[in-house]
Amino acid sequence: MSRVTCDLTVSLDGFVAGPNQTPTDPLGEGGELLHRWQFEEREANAPELEGILAAGAYIMGRNMFAGPGAWAEEWRGWWGEEPPYHAPVFVLTHQEREPVQMQGGTTFNFVTDGIESALARAREAAGSKDVAIAGGAQTARQYLSAGLIDELRLHIAPMTLGAGERLLDGVGNLTLEPTEVSGSRLVTHVRYRIIR
Amino acid sequence: MSRVTCDLTVSLDGFVAGPNQTPTDPLGEGGELLHRWQFEEREANAPELEGILAAGAYIMGRNMFAGPGAWAEEWRGWWGEEPPYHAPVFVLTHQEREPVQMQGGTTFNFVTDGIESALARAREAAGSKDVAIAGGAQTARQYLSAGLIDELRLHIAPMTLGAGERLLDGVGNLTLEPTEVSGSRLVTHVRYRIIR
Repeated sequence: MSRVTCDLTVSLDGFVAGPNQTPTDPLGEGGELLHRWQFEEREANAPELEGILAAGAYIMGRNMFAGPGAWAEEWRGWWGEEPPYHAPVFVLTHQEREPVQMQGGTTFNFVTDGIESALARAREAAGSKDVAIAGGAQTARQYLSAGLIDELRLHIAPMTLGAGERLLDGVGNLTLEPTEVSGSRLVTHVRYRIIR
Repeated sequence: MSRVTCDLTVSLDGFVAGPNQTPTDPLGEGGELLHRWQFEEREANAPELEGILAAGAYIMGRNMFAGPGAWAEEWRGWWGEEPPYHAPVFVLTHQEREPVQMQGGTTFNFVTDGIESALARAREAAGSKDVAIAGGAQTARQYLSAGLIDELRLHIAPMTLGAGERLLDGVGNLTLEPTEVSGSRLVTHVRYRIIR
């Protein structure tokens, strides 16, 4: 069976976003600095960047798809007409909607009956490939708390934010096993297998 | 000039100790599990373990030396007659006391006029060797906040504690640079240079 993976970038003090997040500034104050490695060190981090988009299906929260609040009927995500997923994406929401087919193989499917149902559908769509929990952090926490993630890939930015949204608050007592570490000047990558 | 280093073991969610710390259980609930790597994987982690005790002088908080509360006049630390430091140790305290000379080169010196004074004395004692902030976490935070640490060596245990004492709370916005990553099954080591 395919694995369930989750890539997340966090500060050294554990935040996925800085303080004062807003719908137009979802990363909060200073939060965009966490992601410098993805833009300034693309080459050094090519394997990890490719790994983020290698899954056979994705699951994301509704805030990641559309921001908080109801979305307009014509909303088609933040990623333009050809999103980078090139695979089925399952969006967790309470708002029923027909699938939206984008260019390049991405289809947004809307799942209104919970995280386990979304995972079952994503597994079926992914075949032998992995299912990736694409975010946001709240969705990742839900899957972590439910014990449904096999591999957590943390990208630790070498900075502290001091306040904001913490990735691992409320996920309970996890036991993990680091299986690979690597890094560059702007990030440390640690792959963790989650031990049940 | 010698560097100022600081080794600390933290959980993946940033805690140096679990909840409900007491004088007789300073690591709190589950906190002792953070240090499994030091006991169960001594060989794999020999370089890091040696690095912790390679400094020319050490600084520690009074709680690390004696636990909270006043200490008895005859108290000589937790480490027996031959402590593992083999070098001068400067203990931050408000309680004046003559130096205590132990076997094997360790001398406990008591510093009552603050962290900068302790650092000046430790630097002088260390010569060309490093000065190590030996702990506890509160002392490390004081030195981090004051911008006095050059190299932070985190030993990240692959577990979450969910609650307890956080290492990096209140240290402000730090910018760091990872200079080395390595690890084993029970720990991920990251060396950070702190950028001023």
